Amino acid sequence: MALIVMKFGGTSVGTPEKIKAVAERVLRSKRAGNQMVVVLSAMSGETNRLIDLAQQMQELPDPREMDMLQSTGEQVSIALFSMAVKAAGDDAISLLGDQIKIQTDSVFTKARIEGIDSERIMAELNQGKVVTVAGFQGVASDGSITTLGRGGSDTTAVALAAALMADSCEIYTDVEGVYTTDPNICNKARKIDRISYDEMLELASLGAKVLDIRSVTFAKQYNVPVHVRSTFTETEGTWVVKEDKEMEGRIVSGVTYNKNEARITITGVPDQPGIASKIFTPISDADIIVDMIIQNQDVGNGLTDMTFTVMRTDYLRTMQLLQDMSDKIGAGDVHGSENITKISIVGVGMRNHSGIASTMFSVLAKEGINISLISTSEIKVSCVIEEKYTELAIRALHDAFELDKSDPPVEEDII
Amino acid sequence: MALIVMKFGGTSVGTPEKIKAVAERVLRSKRAGNQMVVVLSAMSGETNRLIDLAQQMQELPDPREMDMLQSTGEQVSIALFSMAVKAAGDDAISLLGDQIKIQTDSVFTKARIEGIDSERIMAELNQGKVVTVAGFQGVASDGSITTLGRGGSDTTAVALAAALMADSCEIYTDVEGVYTTDPNICNKARKIDRISYDEMLELASLGAKVLDIRSVTFAKQYNVPVHVRSTFTETEGTWVVKEDKEMEGRIVSGVTYNKNEARITITGVPDQPGIASKIFTPISDADIIVDMIIQNQDVGNGLTDMTFTVMRTDYLRTMQLLQDMSDKIGAGDVHGSENITKISIVGVGMRNHSGIASTMFSVLAKEGINISLISTSEIKVSCVIEEKYTELAIRALHDAFELDKSDPPVEEDII
Repeated sequence: MALIVMKFGGTSVGTPEKIKAVAERVLRSKRAGNQMVVVLSAMSGETNRLIDLAQQMQELPDPREMDMLQSTGEQVSIALFSMAVKAAGDDAISLLGDQIKIQTDSVFTKARIEGIDSERIMAELNQGKVVTVAGFQGVASDGSITTLGRGGSDTTAVALAAALMADSCEIYTDVEGVYTTDPNICNKARKIDRISYDEMLELASLGAKVLDIRSVTFAKQYNVPVHVRSTFTETEGTWVVKEDKEMEGRIVSGVTYNKNEARITITGVPDQPGIASKIFTPISDADIIVDMIIQNQDVGNGLTDMTFTVMRTDYLRTMQLLQDMSDKIGAGDVHGSENITKISIVGVGMRNHSGIASTMFSVLAKEGINISLISTSEIKVSCVIEEKYTELAIRALHDAFELDKSDPPVEEDII
Repeated sequence: MALIVMKFGGTSVGTPEKIKAVAERVLRSKRAGNQMVVVLSAMSGETNRLIDLAQQMQELPDPREMDMLQSTGEQVSIALFSMAVKAAGDDAISLLGDQIKIQTDSVFTKARIEGIDSERIMAELNQGKVVTVAGFQGVASDGSITTLGRGGSDTTAVALAAALMADSCEIYTDVEGVYTTDPNICNKARKIDRISYDEMLELASLGAKVLDIRSVTFAKQYNVPVHVRSTFTETEGTWVVKEDKEMEGRIVSGVTYNKNEARITITGVPDQPGIASKIFTPISDADIIVDMIIQNQDVGNGLTDMTFTVMRTDYLRTMQLLQDMSDKIGAGDVHGSENITKISIVGVGMRNHSGIASTMFSVLAKEGINISLISTSEIKVSCVIEEKYTELAIRALHDAFELDKSDPPVEEDII
């Protein structure tokens, strides 16, 4: 008998019929002898309906009240799901964040989980019930309802799997798993059978939307095997697991891209100690997040250029701040572009293989694509290029690193 | 400074605009120097939407899950209301049943309140906030959400007013108060300025729908002055308060009617000890509630007739049960009618005045209306008549007891 946590997103529970189908799926697994915990999101469309109501009340809705409002979406889903299980002749109970003490901090609309009480859930499971838990929500120390932000139901599921020492955590979604790259761009994209937590973290933070990044952090921290798979088929999806030898044999696991950033350059900056701090402090004071930064070598005239990226939505505001700063510090021209893409290759194998970055640069060069910024980590290389080359770059890199070729065979005992 | 509990029903908070209007109304009272606690129902239509979803999942939805589902309606209302107050530049906090420990029993979908913790609300009030509480819901001892049944938000408001020792409890609704009779039937119907708890209990249980009967019981028990008034005007409505001398001077306060009952007669019943129990035990075993019962005098042949009323929805089922019973005990014919109305006059003055019932009988007789059952209490006389005479009877009684004439003047210190 295994204890399995299953999480279904909004599109999987979007109608009464779909909720019934989810109940059938869960009961198949239960009747095969497993203990089942089911985490649900709000029915698709419901969260947006609630946000729309809130915005009619207050321009910037109060965060605590927003959480009070939004958390009802998941509450509706779990109540309906329990009814569906009971209608199918089995037993179920729905539980809210505060009923199983999903303790969080008090940062409304983006709270962090600090603890979960597994006792109540175990008691219900041991009575033979399917336990369904509202995703996305928790409770602050003063008893207020909190929510975990977009994608928060993934985190709820993984945190529950960790607290319950579940055998696995299955994240059901509308795609079949994690792909080597976006199948809409590259028709050779292949579903990855197994991927390490660290690779998944890079892919998630770089823009792959299949799994929320905080849930991967949690999964890594507590070593929870996560199975990302489709609600609509029985096919195995992608297992996100602890790194092992076989993964290291694969140099690059995926190619990903992010079109949400903009590039800004400030030229003719006096190259003196403390200048970077002078430029970036007002930006961070304005709550603008800077991603990549490069500073060119001083070519001898005591002046340097700095280039960095920010979120596209912060582009105009940052340009304005920087113009003002440039006047103050006697720097030169400020220019930039919103039409950029960050292309990245990710793979734990990079730790043991050299020359991966230079292969990437030459692949892009061969296609005539100019690179304006580069950043690297132990298992990732990212390049900023012009947006219009996005598809070309992805296909070229996917080919060059032979990502369409299968993974090595999976050892059965890992799953 | 007074502490006022205000309750607004579903039609009063049916749209974002209406919620804003409610917030304005509450803030006018707050800015006049009062502490405000606001109880809200679900936006009109929302509860029915949720019930419809539930019925798509399970033919008879599980009561616990039904409460988990339904309670979201009020949660949405209070969150939106808080936002509206904040948007208007004031401060508010929304609180759920379990957050202020509205303890109930575990009878899901019709729970009874057992206690309320006033501490949290007082703390928030003392910080200058408008406190808004979800109506209709509480929490059972195991932490499950419960609901109080239709009209439950009235009960929440009165129970809160009692727990907080509020100066008054204002129930906002879509009518201007409690009327001497149904204004749709009798155009001389007059709004009652003040009515006693006992009279209101009789009116509520007899069919006047303006205030839920359990809330009146609570109000009487804790001596909470309840002001029933219109959301859409500033006019004073009806105060439901402790009985006083002036009320006793008024013999009849209201005429009410109930068309939800049916009459059944079983003839030729052997008049022996235990026969009534034989007839009514199977009926109560079938969860059928019997309201009025009369047994005719045995006229010497050892046989008697029995007549009683049940809910119209139980009519056919009761007829069937009774036919079977009649065969068994050797009684005669079973007949009845669904086309009856119970007409009642209510007034605390009856305690000190004789002849009220006989006046009622002669008023009906003068109009040629036959009475088939009569029942009385200390402050009420009810007669069952043919349904087609309903309007005629109401108008005749309203005239005979001069209900169109004003109340005696109100002593200011009572309000």
